[in-house]
Amino acid sequence: MFCYLDNAATTRPYDEVIQYMMEVQEAIYGNPSSLHNFGVGAEKEMSKAREIVAHSLNISAKEIVFTSSATEANNLAVRGFLNRNHRVGRHIITSEIEHPSILELCKDLEKNGYEIDRIKVEENGQIDMDHLRKLLRQDTALVSVMYVNNETGAIQPIEKIKKAIHEAESNAVLHVDAVQGFAKHDFAPHKLGVDSATISAHKFHGPKGAAALYIKSGIHIDPIIFGGGQERGLRSGTENVPAIAGFAKATEIAGASQNDDLACVLQMRETFLNGLEVEGLVINSDPNGSPYILNFAIPGIRSEVMLHHLESVEVIVSTGSACASSRKSESHVLRAMGKSRNVIDSSIRVSFGKRHTRQEIEYAVGHINAFSSSLRRKR
Amino acid sequence: MFCYLDNAATTRPYDEVIQYMMEVQEAIYGNPSSLHNFGVGAEKEMSKAREIVAHSLNISAKEIVFTSSATEANNLAVRGFLNRNHRVGRHIITSEIEHPSILELCKDLEKNGYEIDRIKVEENGQIDMDHLRKLLRQDTALVSVMYVNNETGAIQPIEKIKKAIHEAESNAVLHVDAVQGFAKHDFAPHKLGVDSATISAHKFHGPKGAAALYIKSGIHIDPIIFGGGQERGLRSGTENVPAIAGFAKATEIAGASQNDDLACVLQMRETFLNGLEVEGLVINSDPNGSPYILNFAIPGIRSEVMLHHLESVEVIVSTGSACASSRKSESHVLRAMGKSRNVIDSSIRVSFGKRHTRQEIEYAVGHINAFSSSLRRKR
Repeated sequence: MFCYLDNAATTRPYDEVIQYMMEVQEAIYGNPSSLHNFGVGAEKEMSKAREIVAHSLNISAKEIVFTSSATEANNLAVRGFLNRNHRVGRHIITSEIEHPSILELCKDLEKNGYEIDRIKVEENGQIDMDHLRKLLRQDTALVSVMYVNNETGAIQPIEKIKKAIHEAESNAVLHVDAVQGFAKHDFAPHKLGVDSATISAHKFHGPKGAAALYIKSGIHIDPIIFGGGQERGLRSGTENVPAIAGFAKATEIAGASQNDDLACVLQMRETFLNGLEVEGLVINSDPNGSPYILNFAIPGIRSEVMLHHLESVEVIVSTGSACASSRKSESHVLRAMGKSRNVIDSSIRVSFGKRHTRQEIEYAVGHINAFSSSLRRKR
Repeated sequence: MFCYLDNAATTRPYDEVIQYMMEVQEAIYGNPSSLHNFGVGAEKEMSKAREIVAHSLNISAKEIVFTSSATEANNLAVRGFLNRNHRVGRHIITSEIEHPSILELCKDLEKNGYEIDRIKVEENGQIDMDHLRKLLRQDTALVSVMYVNNETGAIQPIEKIKKAIHEAESNAVLHVDAVQGFAKHDFAPHKLGVDSATISAHKFHGPKGAAALYIKSGIHIDPIIFGGGQERGLRSGTENVPAIAGFAKATEIAGASQNDDLACVLQMRETFLNGLEVEGLVINSDPNGSPYILNFAIPGIRSEVMLHHLESVEVIVSTGSACASSRKSESHVLRAMGKSRNVIDSSIRVSFGKRHTRQEIEYAVGHINAFSSSLRRKR
């Protein structure tokens, strides 16, 4: 029984998405920038996709910039804003548990004269609001905090962050990496007071190669890639029309069943947790976090050992985020949460998708239990 | 009869490419950065694609960086080199007929303290080598010239440019935008002395969303997008595996028939040119240029008028490059070649693909002839 439980790394696209992208490749292959009707047809497909994605965020289509990946969107939001708005300040606040696309970018900004502060996190994986309040300054240009953490599922208090910025009388804009939350949890940038936000298709059964940056109307940014002036001059390069069309298709499908999916995933997580019978189990995920991501440790069994055993029985899990896992460094997220080395080294991330049966979940848990006790017996 | 003659803007992907991408989306959807075998499978697909693309350029797989578009690759090559190699100098040479991804980038660099010189071009659309020799300096950091011009098909003397750099005792690296030449004409970066080069899948019946930058081993550049460290740290973001796999598939198909295709396109161009019977015809393309692109003017008939008439009979042509055409500005390429306003305003670009029958070409030319003479009669 094949059970793919690494949906936070990437998902299998919906069949409808794959089919639709194939149709676009066959029939709507014009360049949206072309003057002729064959280009106009491609441009219409782009507009339709833009409307669908904007609608799902309850924003205007003009507030969407399509990019090739969430990493690109995060880079565009932060560097693009700073390049355009020199005068706001050179102080940036982010958190210790961001995705590498924010953390590595911040390291580069630090080398180039920006001052970066990183908000500490609580034991449950949420940022320390008091620490944020202490860090906020008049010259803080930008605060970047993710919505749902990619390693633990911890949901960050975006509305409170906005309020804190306001109370500190700071002009800082608020950027949110909403990659793991979008299409799974309610995320309304206007209502939350978010100034820019990143979402990505391949995290919710859309295609790779398509992501989007929401930029609130009135916020001005510079491009980071220059050229033909596509995406209102903010992201040049021939638009990846099939992938963007697939992105919209996945958004529609997810939107139609978001609440049902959430209920279903909550059930999966419960089945999983109830089934786990291992000695010394440590749950790293916040019980109030997103049920799509469950992070736990079985101290004494190294993550890689468990991962490779599970893949031998076709259960696919992760030792952390894909972006960091290939470098085999310890999780910066769990470290920031104050987890011990022993817990960090034995942590497993299970991330649910849309296609799991109860049998699959029980199959996966059964193998975790059996392998844990067999290893324990050997010792 | 549908006749798509705008293949320099973008092409219809091969059926085999579309089919293969679908298979990858269905079965190899893992994240190449994941540790588990499902990620490893995706990473293997990436390696295979990298080998195929590298082989077609006769370079090493390590010299390839996959990007989302040629525009991104051009930006990465130029800005990435300059950011990493401050000490080489702040003088850049490009030509007046580059793609906007180079020209607009250079404008931004100019704002940020770089000095840009633009090589003039001859009447045939080739750069003026004497002018280049005058512009070259000891502190020239980079020379960026395209291989095949996207509006006229003019082939630039890359080997001579390299020689001129050498003779001027300049340390400048040579970047080549080879988007319109790759997979159509021989292009061997090592042999030509090219230090970096951009190629793009959707220009030769591969998918949108996949391009590559060749960087000669030993040349060091900084990334322009920071994050999880994919592509040896030079281009972060989850890899668009299906598109990159499709890129490789298109490269294989094109490679297997490159010479036959070229002979076939030469024939198409001849059929087209022999068939044209219009008063005052001006051929803007160099007869020794790439036969894939034919640019001509019928003075007195505005390009848009011809374009829209032709689309009404399902013949798709362009008034210039797609990247510039939506902004309706006059062609900077034809202007640089010294063409009159009258010629520029009535110029049409026809760009051939792989799928045209003789009947299609004759159908297209017939409509151009008929429309021209009917407009002339009315006056």
